[in-house]
Amino acid sequence: MKKLINEPEDVVDEMLDGMVAAHPDRLRRLDGQEVLVRADAPVDGKVGVVSGGGSGHEPTHAGYLGEGMLDGAAAGEVFTSPTGDQLNEMIEACDGGEGVLCVVKNYEGDVMNFDTAAEMADIEGVDVEQVVVNDDVAVEDSLYTSGRRGVAGTILVHKAAGAKAAQGADLQTVAETAEKVIDNVGTMGMALTSCVTPEKGEPTFDLGDDEIELGIGIHGEPGTERTETMSADEVTEHLTERVLDDLELDDGQEVVTMVNGMGGTPLMELFVVNRRLQELMDDEGLDVWDAWVGDYMTSLDMEGCSITVCAVDEELKELLAAPADTPAMTVQE
Amino acid sequence: MKKLINEPEDVVDEMLDGMVAAHPDRLRRLDGQEVLVRADAPVDGKVGVVSGGGSGHEPTHAGYLGEGMLDGAAAGEVFTSPTGDQLNEMIEACDGGEGVLCVVKNYEGDVMNFDTAAEMADIEGVDVEQVVVNDDVAVEDSLYTSGRRGVAGTILVHKAAGAKAAQGADLQTVAETAEKVIDNVGTMGMALTSCVTPEKGEPTFDLGDDEIELGIGIHGEPGTERTETMSADEVTEHLTERVLDDLELDDGQEVVTMVNGMGGTPLMELFVVNRRLQELMDDEGLDVWDAWVGDYMTSLDMEGCSITVCAVDEELKELLAAPADTPAMTVQE
Repeated sequence: MKKLINEPEDVVDEMLDGMVAAHPDRLRRLDGQEVLVRADAPVDGKVGVVSGGGSGHEPTHAGYLGEGMLDGAAAGEVFTSPTGDQLNEMIEACDGGEGVLCVVKNYEGDVMNFDTAAEMADIEGVDVEQVVVNDDVAVEDSLYTSGRRGVAGTILVHKAAGAKAAQGADLQTVAETAEKVIDNVGTMGMALTSCVTPEKGEPTFDLGDDEIELGIGIHGEPGTERTETMSADEVTEHLTERVLDDLELDDGQEVVTMVNGMGGTPLMELFVVNRRLQELMDDEGLDVWDAWVGDYMTSLDMEGCSITVCAVDEELKELLAAPADTPAMTVQE
Repeated sequence: MKKLINEPEDVVDEMLDGMVAAHPDRLRRLDGQEVLVRADAPVDGKVGVVSGGGSGHEPTHAGYLGEGMLDGAAAGEVFTSPTGDQLNEMIEACDGGEGVLCVVKNYEGDVMNFDTAAEMADIEGVDVEQVVVNDDVAVEDSLYTSGRRGVAGTILVHKAAGAKAAQGADLQTVAETAEKVIDNVGTMGMALTSCVTPEKGEPTFDLGDDEIELGIGIHGEPGTERTETMSADEVTEHLTERVLDDLELDDGQEVVTMVNGMGGTPLMELFVVNRRLQELMDDEGLDVWDAWVGDYMTSLDMEGCSITVCAVDEELKELLAAPADTPAMTVQE
């Protein structure tokens, strides 16, 4: 399989330099580290909000660096957790004196290395809180996970917690905001094709010409079901039903929906999915306050999508609509 | 090949409904037409700026509808020009009394149908100006073109002309702004893989596992050269050299660069390309005022990219930095 890369072992390093070259006023790379931070980090008197994980999910995480979202983003090798040292450097670089919230996606390596980093930062006198996102309703436990996986719903956590921190809330309150999103969000994904990692250069898994995989993870981890190809409407119905079964929302509940592309999916197809999703929300008596469509958390070149639903109250609506100025997401005042 | 669609003949119709469902406050569909306009179109006392073409290039064109960019976007069938009637309906719906500028990509069908539409609108008393974008430096004449093709540089035309119109300039001045961008922009693309149209369901062209195509068009039209796979740096050098040869810029010239993904390319790879592009700009003595990286004008699920360079002066910088509020591009004040 062909890729627009140089040496596979250089791809993360070169990507990070390419990101900073595109946004020199907004992003800064920590010396000798695979970590990007806001150009003005640490922001004095503001709680820092950081995240990180394996690379290959762009624009996650560094695309969300900036005012109103993240202060720091650590980039592991492709589909590999950042190291504890790397995460610790990020946490310390993003502490403006009010402590740092780490938004961790639930994968064993990420959870373990963020724990190590938080302990190291604590020794240096940095207050650290962690939240673990586990929005994937598809499977309990998985190839890299105890419990449910953290996937695209994480972006809503970044947005809400980042806005709360920008408003001047303290560390505990910012962490509670993040937990509120986590308690109210569910996601399920599917794939038409496997992703291809730079190192392996071949599909991570085999999927026949007439097969799709439902409940897929963002690293190509097995899902719930391999089935014959379905129409976009059938896929949308299947994913949405599973997410709503998990959330058990009341009639009339306000929600944010997200149709997330896995990286190789034409935007055209994501809008076709969104059309049916909005019909289903209407049928279910849910009140869609905002509908997001795009590539928010990808899996390299995988073709497929995920559907996220998050119940929102007045506080979360205010935070999700609050200003943000990042490479991948801009919300105007 | 698998796609997230229902019936191929419904894909454009369903996509447009899905776009409006995602942005109900921003977008409106003309009754019975495959045309989207700004929700508040026509804007009284402002020159309307419209575009359109075949579908399959999303977010082009409807993703750029909104304040500071386009007023109307006509969506033909996949890779097929919108009809004259459809374009005429759009033009009339976007005339706020000051006339309408049509931004046309140079393809024979688009040019012919926009001509027809402009004549029809003229009979109805609408002032219409047209500009034809032909930024692709790869080939003179092509499968669907007399002269050079219009590709990703078109987005810079939308941005600058849209901003000029938002400032209250008259039709002639808005058209001159568009021409100024066209005179100063060049683009060249390449593909690792073919796109697959919904109707055909198979690759438009065959490209071997060890081949890439340089100078490719956004519908998979043949390029200048089919060659062995190259590194990202080599691809970037080749494309950039061709664009700069065409533009013949002076030392120290300020430019905007754009690395555009063709739809199926991981964002990671576009940043790897941008890294080398910015080094080359520096080597050439060019002063990069802004660097864009993302999927601006795609070719369904094609893997590959294009590189655009546009020389800018004070006026163009002001217009490109002016506020815009559209689904695919937001620029804050």
